[in-house]
Amino acid sequence: MAFSRATLALLYMTQKKKIAKNKGENLKQRALKAHKRLEGKIAITPKGKLKTMSDLALWYTPGVAAVSSHLAKKKKETPDYTIKGNTIAVVSDGSAVLGLGNIGPEGALPVMEGKAMIFKAFAGVNAFPIVLNTQDKEEIIKTVKAIAPGFGGINLEDISSPRCFEIEERLKKELPIPVFHDDQHGTAIVVLAGLINAAKVTKRSMKDMRVVIVGAGAAGVAVAKILLRYGVKNIVVTDKEGIISKKRKNLNKAKEWLAQNTNKKSLDGGLSVAAEDADAIIGVSGPGNIKAHHVRSMNKDSIVFALANPTPEIMPEEAKKAGAAVIATGRSDFPNQINNALVFPGVFRGALDNRVRNITEAMKIQAALNLAHCVKKPTAEKIIPSIFAKQVVREVAKAIR
Amino acid sequence: MAFSRATLALLYMTQKKKIAKNKGENLKQRALKAHKRLEGKIAITPKGKLKTMSDLALWYTPGVAAVSSHLAKKKKETPDYTIKGNTIAVVSDGSAVLGLGNIGPEGALPVMEGKAMIFKAFAGVNAFPIVLNTQDKEEIIKTVKAIAPGFGGINLEDISSPRCFEIEERLKKELPIPVFHDDQHGTAIVVLAGLINAAKVTKRSMKDMRVVIVGAGAAGVAVAKILLRYGVKNIVVTDKEGIISKKRKNLNKAKEWLAQNTNKKSLDGGLSVAAEDADAIIGVSGPGNIKAHHVRSMNKDSIVFALANPTPEIMPEEAKKAGAAVIATGRSDFPNQINNALVFPGVFRGALDNRVRNITEAMKIQAALNLAHCVKKPTAEKIIPSIFAKQVVREVAKAIR
Repeated sequence: MAFSRATLALLYMTQKKKIAKNKGENLKQRALKAHKRLEGKIAITPKGKLKTMSDLALWYTPGVAAVSSHLAKKKKETPDYTIKGNTIAVVSDGSAVLGLGNIGPEGALPVMEGKAMIFKAFAGVNAFPIVLNTQDKEEIIKTVKAIAPGFGGINLEDISSPRCFEIEERLKKELPIPVFHDDQHGTAIVVLAGLINAAKVTKRSMKDMRVVIVGAGAAGVAVAKILLRYGVKNIVVTDKEGIISKKRKNLNKAKEWLAQNTNKKSLDGGLSVAAEDADAIIGVSGPGNIKAHHVRSMNKDSIVFALANPTPEIMPEEAKKAGAAVIATGRSDFPNQINNALVFPGVFRGALDNRVRNITEAMKIQAALNLAHCVKKPTAEKIIPSIFAKQVVREVAKAIR
Repeated sequence: MAFSRATLALLYMTQKKKIAKNKGENLKQRALKAHKRLEGKIAITPKGKLKTMSDLALWYTPGVAAVSSHLAKKKKETPDYTIKGNTIAVVSDGSAVLGLGNIGPEGALPVMEGKAMIFKAFAGVNAFPIVLNTQDKEEIIKTVKAIAPGFGGINLEDISSPRCFEIEERLKKELPIPVFHDDQHGTAIVVLAGLINAAKVTKRSMKDMRVVIVGAGAAGVAVAKILLRYGVKNIVVTDKEGIISKKRKNLNKAKEWLAQNTNKKSLDGGLSVAAEDADAIIGVSGPGNIKAHHVRSMNKDSIVFALANPTPEIMPEEAKKAGAAVIATGRSDFPNQINNALVFPGVFRGALDNRVRNITEAMKIQAALNLAHCVKKPTAEKIIPSIFAKQVVREVAKAIR
């Protein structure tokens, strides 16, 4: 009995989905087992030995008293004598964890531990997870300020928008150490780096590009800001309600800012309106939010970054069929993985090494340029270096000084 | 030219003091240098490897999402999958650091790092130092509660009395994890252990002993409480103003409690009054606070614990000359080192292993008994095991269940 071509295709797709699903389930099971076996993904280990009374006298009492007395008088030297010189806190309230939403501090903890692993393995930075039992803006600010003296920097993580904006702004102002909300700026830096190389590949000028950003949360707002600062003039941002414009009411402070500073042509409507004749679409929202017809309505050789994780706004294959020339996702199983892990280790490596108090907008743009330059000859399949490329941390760190 | 015996003795003493002073200065210099070279006494290290994309997928996204989702639903299982199972915070506001007083969080940090080293090296417990930028009681309580979800226990450290009492009490009530103020209970446990063996050596009954406690800060109050609970009936506590009695006015809450529960004979006056016919004096105050004449006025074969660090209330040699039979200090260069490091590693080892929510008074007494029993045949020179004795952590941990 012969199958029609359509039937065969259907069988093939079903089988493929099954395999993909099993693969996913296997990873889930494996991850649960592996995490349970490890009982925590990081350890705290002594750097000196504690074998004899004289070791104890040196590192603990009475020897440590000399260091304590010294630092009580010369607080600024604390990073020279303590963990403060090379240790940051990875702080989350668990309100916007991965694509999982508001799952609280317990759910956030394994993610923050994963970040701590990456910080150490990639950049030699000691990072300790602090997950908070509060989602109150003022309490978060107070808590981070209270625990700050022992840290050389604060990486804010997975805190929902728009609270994340004010929390970061206030902490930047009120703390003498660098504060960096990775969901905003890590994403913004890696997106700018990718877009610089995607523009090279498609022979576009960044200034004249029409860019649509899908999603106006922490990442969307930060991407819009860094692109504007870099010189991209024509940007339109959409959220669930459609294009963000001056006509929109009840916008939060961040979206109000977007309304004032993007969408120069005062477009109104949904993504279909925004996508028409766009050169690039950057999805930082949720699964399936970009459709093939959106891509088809874009300019020729379009650029599509579908960064929702783990399920992108549009699958690469579909985007390609619809005419996209350069496609990136957040995933490791497709080319062009646009992932914050390319950025945050180097940012704090640089900030700690150079005792940077504030990670400025200029430093962020320089970090994106350095990251883009890690790929000597960008192609459609390679606009961004691998997370494991040796020079990435060094090049990003160079920008933070 | 011959020297008189007195001159020779004087020369000898001067030389000895010089050597001691040089030794002290050398340790200070060495400690400063060593701390500067190490740049932090602990490191945070990944427990799994991060070499390939599949490592990243397992420990970070997308694999970690399975663990996060699981814990969002089953919060109680957080210690099984994360650092919470074997990690505690060592929290200080720097208000009463060693004998150095209120030197703030920067001065406190190297001490807390030293404790973290000891926790890991002795008991395998991950401990992370949190030094606070506030000394406000309510803010400390709020901060510790806010950061608690990622920790399996809280070791409060070097927080001045009487604030330390309420901070601990409140946190014990309001947090679902064990909270232990080491300056109080670590000291109390090790003192009780030492006193049990000192009583054996001097053939005394603990119940009938007259005990004087010099100092009514965190340690003094806790020592009085544990001794009372253990069954010692005759206790007198002195502070800078003299004997704590019902006649004293403006006592803080803790001292008020002492006035009601100690000094049954309603003595008034200074340490000279308290010390007369005492069996044991326990100094938890400051250098030089116990004089030879105090010891001379005690009962025969007296017990003197002079625990102020690094300079004891009375030097062992002087106490011995004045008639003390068993002498202990906090120092490693004399016999009988009564040090909290004998206690805190085992306490948290037990609390974490047995998922103990509250470290009770009964557990503390059991810990002291187990610690005392580590010395099979106590002598005047050995009432307490060495900090490096293998069984110490195990025996103390056994009591916390």
